[in-house]
Amino acid sequence: MAAMKWWGWGLEGVAFTHEDKPELGPFIEEKLGLDVERIVERPPAFAALAVPEPVLATELRDALEAAVGAVHVTSDALDRVVHARGKSIRDLVRQRRGDLPRVPDVVVRPGSEEEVTGVLKAAIAHDAVLIPFGGGSSISGSLEAEPEEERTVVSVDMARLDRVLSVDAASRTARVQAGVFGPALEEQLNAQGWTFGHFPDSFTHSTLGGWIATRSSGMQSDRYGDIADLTRGVRVVTPAGTLVTRPVPSQSTGPSLREMVLGSEGRLGLITEATVHVQRVPQERRILGYLFPTFGAGLAAMNELAASEVSVSVTRVSDAPETQFSFATRKKGSLLDKVKSKALTTFLTRRKGFALDEMCLSFIGYEGSAEHVATQRKAVGELVGRHGGLCIGSSPGQLYDQKKFDTPYIRDFLLDRGCVADVSETAAPWSELRSVYDSGRAAAQGAFATLGVQGYVMCHLSHSYHSGACLYFTFAFEPAPGRGDMLEQYDVVKRAVQQAFVDAAGTLSHHHAVGTEHAEWLAQDVSAPGVAILEALFEGTDPGRNLNPGKIVGARRIAAEAGNRTGRPE
Amino acid sequence: MAAMKWWGWGLEGVAFTHEDKPELGPFIEEKLGLDVERIVERPPAFAALAVPEPVLATELRDALEAAVGAVHVTSDALDRVVHARGKSIRDLVRQRRGDLPRVPDVVVRPGSEEEVTGVLKAAIAHDAVLIPFGGGSSISGSLEAEPEEERTVVSVDMARLDRVLSVDAASRTARVQAGVFGPALEEQLNAQGWTFGHFPDSFTHSTLGGWIATRSSGMQSDRYGDIADLTRGVRVVTPAGTLVTRPVPSQSTGPSLREMVLGSEGRLGLITEATVHVQRVPQERRILGYLFPTFGAGLAAMNELAASEVSVSVTRVSDAPETQFSFATRKKGSLLDKVKSKALTTFLTRRKGFALDEMCLSFIGYEGSAEHVATQRKAVGELVGRHGGLCIGSSPGQLYDQKKFDTPYIRDFLLDRGCVADVSETAAPWSELRSVYDSGRAAAQGAFATLGVQGYVMCHLSHSYHSGACLYFTFAFEPAPGRGDMLEQYDVVKRAVQQAFVDAAGTLSHHHAVGTEHAEWLAQDVSAPGVAILEALFEGTDPGRNLNPGKIVGARRIAAEAGNRTGRPE
Repeated sequence: MAAMKWWGWGLEGVAFTHEDKPELGPFIEEKLGLDVERIVERPPAFAALAVPEPVLATELRDALEAAVGAVHVTSDALDRVVHARGKSIRDLVRQRRGDLPRVPDVVVRPGSEEEVTGVLKAAIAHDAVLIPFGGGSSISGSLEAEPEEERTVVSVDMARLDRVLSVDAASRTARVQAGVFGPALEEQLNAQGWTFGHFPDSFTHSTLGGWIATRSSGMQSDRYGDIADLTRGVRVVTPAGTLVTRPVPSQSTGPSLREMVLGSEGRLGLITEATVHVQRVPQERRILGYLFPTFGAGLAAMNELAASEVSVSVTRVSDAPETQFSFATRKKGSLLDKVKSKALTTFLTRRKGFALDEMCLSFIGYEGSAEHVATQRKAVGELVGRHGGLCIGSSPGQLYDQKKFDTPYIRDFLLDRGCVADVSETAAPWSELRSVYDSGRAAAQGAFATLGVQGYVMCHLSHSYHSGACLYFTFAFEPAPGRGDMLEQYDVVKRAVQQAFVDAAGTLSHHHAVGTEHAEWLAQDVSAPGVAILEALFEGTDPGRNLNPGKIVGARRIAAEAGNRTGRPE
Repeated sequence: MAAMKWWGWGLEGVAFTHEDKPELGPFIEEKLGLDVERIVERPPAFAALAVPEPVLATELRDALEAAVGAVHVTSDALDRVVHARGKSIRDLVRQRRGDLPRVPDVVVRPGSEEEVTGVLKAAIAHDAVLIPFGGGSSISGSLEAEPEEERTVVSVDMARLDRVLSVDAASRTARVQAGVFGPALEEQLNAQGWTFGHFPDSFTHSTLGGWIATRSSGMQSDRYGDIADLTRGVRVVTPAGTLVTRPVPSQSTGPSLREMVLGSEGRLGLITEATVHVQRVPQERRILGYLFPTFGAGLAAMNELAASEVSVSVTRVSDAPETQFSFATRKKGSLLDKVKSKALTTFLTRRKGFALDEMCLSFIGYEGSAEHVATQRKAVGELVGRHGGLCIGSSPGQLYDQKKFDTPYIRDFLLDRGCVADVSETAAPWSELRSVYDSGRAAAQGAFATLGVQGYVMCHLSHSYHSGACLYFTFAFEPAPGRGDMLEQYDVVKRAVQQAFVDAAGTLSHHHAVGTEHAEWLAQDVSAPGVAILEALFEGTDPGRNLNPGKIVGARRIAAEAGNRTGRPE
């Protein structure tokens, strides 16, 4: 099995490349002013890093070894560095720089809930800090110890808890250990004819426990629901013992403990197991491509779809810039070529009145029996037509399916070329979606102008609900020389976009969680009393601040100035 | 407008009667050994009650009057007694007895969020206790002050906050004040072409804020969702200020504050407003009756329906005892007569092989376009047929529609005749539903045997979900003479049933909340660490115990012996 990169997304040996995508190089050159052939920086060799010595008292090491076995307790430098952070752009840049002020002192790998309990007891007895680690794909800063932490930091890697324990066929639920990665979960379930149906972009590199701890959402959420809908019962090792909520379909027994665990980012304890919805693998799974004349037409169609009697599994509409990016990433002779064919463009412009630079690519997914899929397709086709759109068949859908989990690798590709790229996502009511979109775009473009850089920002709608939808922005730019550190410049854009979300009617994050990256806006999203309630919850249940302290609320320096936030070595 | 009864369900002048239901008297005689013509107890005249003098310092009264206006602050005895409790059987019996050890000292009626804030500030400044009051229909003890409370108790009646503030047509949401009652809410929304679609049994006598505070569920939850699904943004006046969560469709900003407010029963603050889902009034709303040969067949059909591609608004199956009760309540010459017709019974027994004493009545509801309703009906018909059931048309559905909000009045009818009747409900995974049903029934019957009474217990499934459903039990019996107090005997049955739920795989309550009635089983449902987390939450946010103290967790005498629980005057 390939090892996780300590400096980038995913696995060693896997990378994004422009070489099989003839239009991508010219596109990046045009939009970002970047020469894709020019590598300006590569990650250093691991041996070149100065990894701080671990702080680990013999008594604590003994206790951890007693809990999980000596072979599952390590202070190996590479292991510690891999577990030091998640995969935010701030994480990647600092890892590449060898900027490692506070890596975990020890990584432990429990193999059972009992062992997790042993780890927690040892940590609390010795006043150490516990940071649960699933797939390590957090882009919100949820996995990094506070820089000024003086106590021993224990990273608890949950990956040995990787099994589907049982499937309750009558209730359509499965008991699953929290450390299982997406592919292993689907594989175990598929073998019995079931699917979980939760496919976030990070699917390959994230775990059930991580999804729950961050309130994740998957691409097929229109059909399956968000992780909050899919998760029924949880088991969480807490300082007060193992919290067990029953896998009942609904209950009115006070504020929902299940919902407190969802999004808790390790602050309440270590999630060991969940009972989750599963569904029979559908007879058909189909994703079709559509084109809309404008982004506004696409939004309106998705809104109407959400209110209709039609049921779909995926709703996604890219804005024009993202549509152009998608076309630029198509492989030579590939399926999407059809869309760019002369015949089609002529049809679109002459017969449909499309302006090609405003045209938007959309994906709509269907699942179920062949008859159900056929009926829904037909109804959607009519609905899309009413908004001036048209179906372009299943070829783009296959492309979507094939590349969906590769996208995060692009950030490393761009970093090698001296360019930062990142994502920011939000959710808003349908009535506010357009203004949140406009605000987010304007904020990014304003920040580019402030920095004097040639940036690119693009967006798509995904995850439609009754009352609104998610907007997912991606932005990229090459930092201006002489205008300060790359991360300081990144912050100018990131902060502008997040501020635009909360200034409009959006939320701070639809599915990437708070961590430390988003903590400074939390009060603007959930109000100051909301923050006070969360602080009361975490302080009351973890008075010693042993459980991933500083995440979501209560960081020691949320309001620190930008210079600190970039975390550069002094 | 008729006044709320101080001694029973609903409004003065409205009552259940057996007189227009020819079979009900004989049915009750047979099943409970009760003569419906023999009234053994009527509520006393209000004037006969000894209502304790209010404890209200001038400074606090002045502060409350400054907050809401003198006309909206009252210590009138009837008003205080009406606000003293909810409508649990324990509440009704004690009210009828004039057992009033700790009624609120003052009732205030704020007319705006600002006034609510004024009330909260006054209460905290003077160390008084605040108990929010919506429709007063709680059957879980959520509205009663702790008997040993020595501070001033302020009942905050929210009924003046009764308006739909705005409808966001594009997002299909409405901003609604929390004190609005069900009928007024639907009326205001219907006038604009919208419906909320939340119809609990208490609909006529309960409010939006009450539904949220207790995690309510309505009869059409299969289509609209529970109140937790319907509620997007909330505004709650708390000691730390007004908690405001955004009405976004989904978010990952830490543990959900919205979900902490849901089910909080006044312990976090006073809910003043919510932004909730609304839907266009459907073209058709249809409830059809079905018959199944056995309860097991009905459960199996509902399970299959929940997994299917069919969408319905109501799923309900009565067990055989409840089916027999339903038949016994039909009016002379009424719609249900058809079901009992000779031709049909002959058909059922001879052609379908039904045993009439095992036959189960079911209701399935449909909403949407005429075409959608027709398609779903057809698919359901086939599914029901596969389980040996058959459709008996819309007449029973009309009966269901007509009587659905009247059922709670029956408890008063029975109390007049010296008989206690109550409900207990749970939810469980599909795989456990039958055993929870069997356990619940056996527990009630075992308790009847212990008491030496002739009791009746009946049950229905309602609220189907992907992974399970709700089971709703009703039980009734005439207490045995010489076997102790009526409420002590009631406790024997109620406790046996609740214990059976948590001993099996059920939850303590699907939609009636915890209050004080269910608090003693809470740790068995959500585990001791779950209770510890809830305590930390409430203690941290309300250190002075001013907000409805003792509800859900932290009651001063949860474990008190049965004699105390009945609350009889010493």
